[in-house]
Amino acid sequence: MTKDKILKFKKSLSRVCGDYAQTLEFELFFSALIDFNPFGDTSQVLEWLSGLNSRQYFEVEEVPFANLQQWHFSPQTGDLQHHSGKFFSIRGCRVLDVKTGETLWDQPIIDQPEVGILGILCKKMDGVLYFLMQAKAEPGNINTYQLSPTVQATRSNFLQVHGGKKTRYLDYFSGERKCRVVIDRYQSEQGARFLGKRNRNLLVLDESGSDVELGENFRWLTLGQIKSLMERDNTVNMDTRSVISQIHYWGYHPDLDHEALAKVISEHRDLVARSDFWLLAVLGGWDNFGNLDQTDKILNKLAWTRHYSFKDKAAVPLNSVQEWKIGEQMIEHREGRFFQVLAVSVRANNREVGHWDQPVIKQRHEGKIGLLAAPQYGAIHFLTQIKMEPGLYDMFELAPTVQCIVQNRVFHNQPAYLEHFENGTNVYAARQSEEGGRFYRECSLNMIRVLDGFNDLEPVEGFVWIPLRQLKELLRHQQVVNVELRSLLAYF
Amino acid sequence: MTKDKILKFKKSLSRVCGDYAQTLEFELFFSALIDFNPFGDTSQVLEWLSGLNSRQYFEVEEVPFANLQQWHFSPQTGDLQHHSGKFFSIRGCRVLDVKTGETLWDQPIIDQPEVGILGILCKKMDGVLYFLMQAKAEPGNINTYQLSPTVQATRSNFLQVHGGKKTRYLDYFSGERKCRVVIDRYQSEQGARFLGKRNRNLLVLDESGSDVELGENFRWLTLGQIKSLMERDNTVNMDTRSVISQIHYWGYHPDLDHEALAKVISEHRDLVARSDFWLLAVLGGWDNFGNLDQTDKILNKLAWTRHYSFKDKAAVPLNSVQEWKIGEQMIEHREGRFFQVLAVSVRANNREVGHWDQPVIKQRHEGKIGLLAAPQYGAIHFLTQIKMEPGLYDMFELAPTVQCIVQNRVFHNQPAYLEHFENGTNVYAARQSEEGGRFYRECSLNMIRVLDGFNDLEPVEGFVWIPLRQLKELLRHQQVVNVELRSLLAYF
Repeated sequence: MTKDKILKFKKSLSRVCGDYAQTLEFELFFSALIDFNPFGDTSQVLEWLSGLNSRQYFEVEEVPFANLQQWHFSPQTGDLQHHSGKFFSIRGCRVLDVKTGETLWDQPIIDQPEVGILGILCKKMDGVLYFLMQAKAEPGNINTYQLSPTVQATRSNFLQVHGGKKTRYLDYFSGERKCRVVIDRYQSEQGARFLGKRNRNLLVLDESGSDVELGENFRWLTLGQIKSLMERDNTVNMDTRSVISQIHYWGYHPDLDHEALAKVISEHRDLVARSDFWLLAVLGGWDNFGNLDQTDKILNKLAWTRHYSFKDKAAVPLNSVQEWKIGEQMIEHREGRFFQVLAVSVRANNREVGHWDQPVIKQRHEGKIGLLAAPQYGAIHFLTQIKMEPGLYDMFELAPTVQCIVQNRVFHNQPAYLEHFENGTNVYAARQSEEGGRFYRECSLNMIRVLDGFNDLEPVEGFVWIPLRQLKELLRHQQVVNVELRSLLAYF
Repeated sequence: MTKDKILKFKKSLSRVCGDYAQTLEFELFFSALIDFNPFGDTSQVLEWLSGLNSRQYFEVEEVPFANLQQWHFSPQTGDLQHHSGKFFSIRGCRVLDVKTGETLWDQPIIDQPEVGILGILCKKMDGVLYFLMQAKAEPGNINTYQLSPTVQATRSNFLQVHGGKKTRYLDYFSGERKCRVVIDRYQSEQGARFLGKRNRNLLVLDESGSDVELGENFRWLTLGQIKSLMERDNTVNMDTRSVISQIHYWGYHPDLDHEALAKVISEHRDLVARSDFWLLAVLGGWDNFGNLDQTDKILNKLAWTRHYSFKDKAAVPLNSVQEWKIGEQMIEHREGRFFQVLAVSVRANNREVGHWDQPVIKQRHEGKIGLLAAPQYGAIHFLTQIKMEPGLYDMFELAPTVQCIVQNRVFHNQPAYLEHFENGTNVYAARQSEEGGRFYRECSLNMIRVLDGFNDLEPVEGFVWIPLRQLKELLRHQQVVNVELRSLLAYF
């Protein structure tokens, strides 16, 4: 495959796209289509990552809480916190029935109020848009190095309050360098683990024309390559998935000939790295314009559910949490369900990273995150649910069809639609890790399953079919689509 | 004017509107155009309100805090709170510079964490959409009775936790009666006065076909009548303005002939109660489709400002607030600026309402809220600013061009663009009250001023011109447009 073939393909596409060919959305769409990359093809990226993985490792040892050097349980609240009061703490969260005042459940939760930056820098080079990705090691990661955004920085990093080196490329996200901001939204993190945690998801485009110096552990990838790597287990980290889920390809272009567009793509099928299902879902998006009212309906339904569920949450001292045991080695549910809070001592095999200790969350069983898809009215729809998670600021967001840890459930209480994922083939399936700085080797099986249609499915209260384009519209809103659904939508 | 003429006008409009004529947006648009109302014309509504005002009055007496029966200063925090711990409290709020940790300012603030319902019921009767409005009395209102939503209820009202009668018409907003939900969004209240306060703004449509029983103090009004009443001082309350600001008229209707639409309206100019400027702004909206990217840009800019302002807020005990004096009669700024917290004893002249006491906020001077408008690229644009208000959850939202209390400022530091409102004529000007349950006779002069264009205006950092339609798009998002800007956008 040569660069020329790619550029000829792009030219043919442009020709049928009218105004659309002049937009950034078109550049994003084209970058998503292709895996061709003269800077390094996808197998080279994998070699690079596995090479890094073989050189860097962390020794992670579970230790008693009492052995933590920098962390202690507060004598008043029992909260597990850093001596400095910074970073994060483990507190209690209580879920309440507003009508009766009853406690529905208690659980430990991570309180990390700082909003961090998850920023990806992109740049057009030789006619194609590339994304600057970082191989980043975290002690809790399966595969130590995963493909991460250009910048993952807390506000403390940003301000360099702890001294330390300036985060590389941060100037592209701080206004110091003039860039075009493509996406900038606050989005929620895992509401079952974090209390009101949000991160800023950023995509910025460098249009300066000047070169971006390529740092060690950084590589330029097409959007298509990131999507291909997402099909492998534990390779693209959660933060990357969260940011790229918010990329959309469509605009209002009445002069766009959708059939001609599809035809050019099919004529260049060998250059297009996306699956037939992907093309069906994404190309179907152009015909689905004008459903802002549908978007309104879903936002209305969400507000309605948030209010009329009559659920509320409160942060409570960790020592008042019911049904959980705070032991010397572990905080765990009294029936061993859900997750554990552990203390770990981490030692890296190189001097720069060194040694530290910290609490981590360990989930005992693999999660299942599944999205049902079906064609209807000429577009692929996805079955989403309005799901309550205590740590979310407004408690309810849109979630995938299935989001659960099967083993935490009792037998007669399996979540709706889980059975659809039990036999047969998924169009997409990969194990994806949670953030390895807080979670210890926690991963979920991400799945997309296509049905013939959804008329036969018995509708369950709180579930709603939404076409892809509308889901991407909803992602323009903040704190509407949860991180698990974003993780799956990153595939498109 | 007869009903027949109105219905013939509507029929003529429908004929040129294609699919659009079948939408709820068209019904809302038509209702906004007309003041004709067989249930009671606008002058009758005014007579009704002033009749109520003359019969009901409140005696509001300032009393020392020590005389409050149900309220006290917490011995620990100094917060002024209700004995039950419910309703609201007066606490301190500290605004911080994140980089230096410095306090920028302290102020008292109302903490009322409950999300209330502001709900308007609408219904199509004899071919026209009417809104069920309530005349509601508040002791702090200028004009005791103002036109209020069908339902203004706290969650406590809703749950009847304090016993008491069930709020009338609440069943239309609670799911007990099946209604079409047109708008359901959490929106912020005054960020300079409330700590993170939000209300649910609801518009629901009764499509049941069965009659709605008309309660005492309730009237059916066209949307146009509400807009006409908004041109009078202190007649339409803040909650009504907030809800109706979120109504939009446009959809995606490629078959809509805008020129024919404008022509039919001009042929029926005598039936249309809206100003030429209103028509220009609203009819211009149809040509401005496809600027979702522009909407993204503004949302991006907002997220950027929220993060990079490096401002933060913290609730602090009232007794730690700097620069404010807590006296026996009053909490006030040491230079007498901003506002006062007072205790009042309220006595109504009728037994049902009776007597109570409570703290209130009193603003010493009238506020000025001004919006500059200008035609550009075929649409009316409005000059908005990204404004910081400490109580807003994310601290920054879109605000009108000018939002200030002139007397609180020192002479050399007048806000940008204020001079544009000093001479000449506004296309809209009315004094509007803040919510009379918390604020004592607090009102602001709301103004819209039209310029010839905005090319000559020196652009000020943080200000942005936004066309009307895009502002209404931004109102689909939660907590993006502040209550002062919503108050002005309710005009359209």
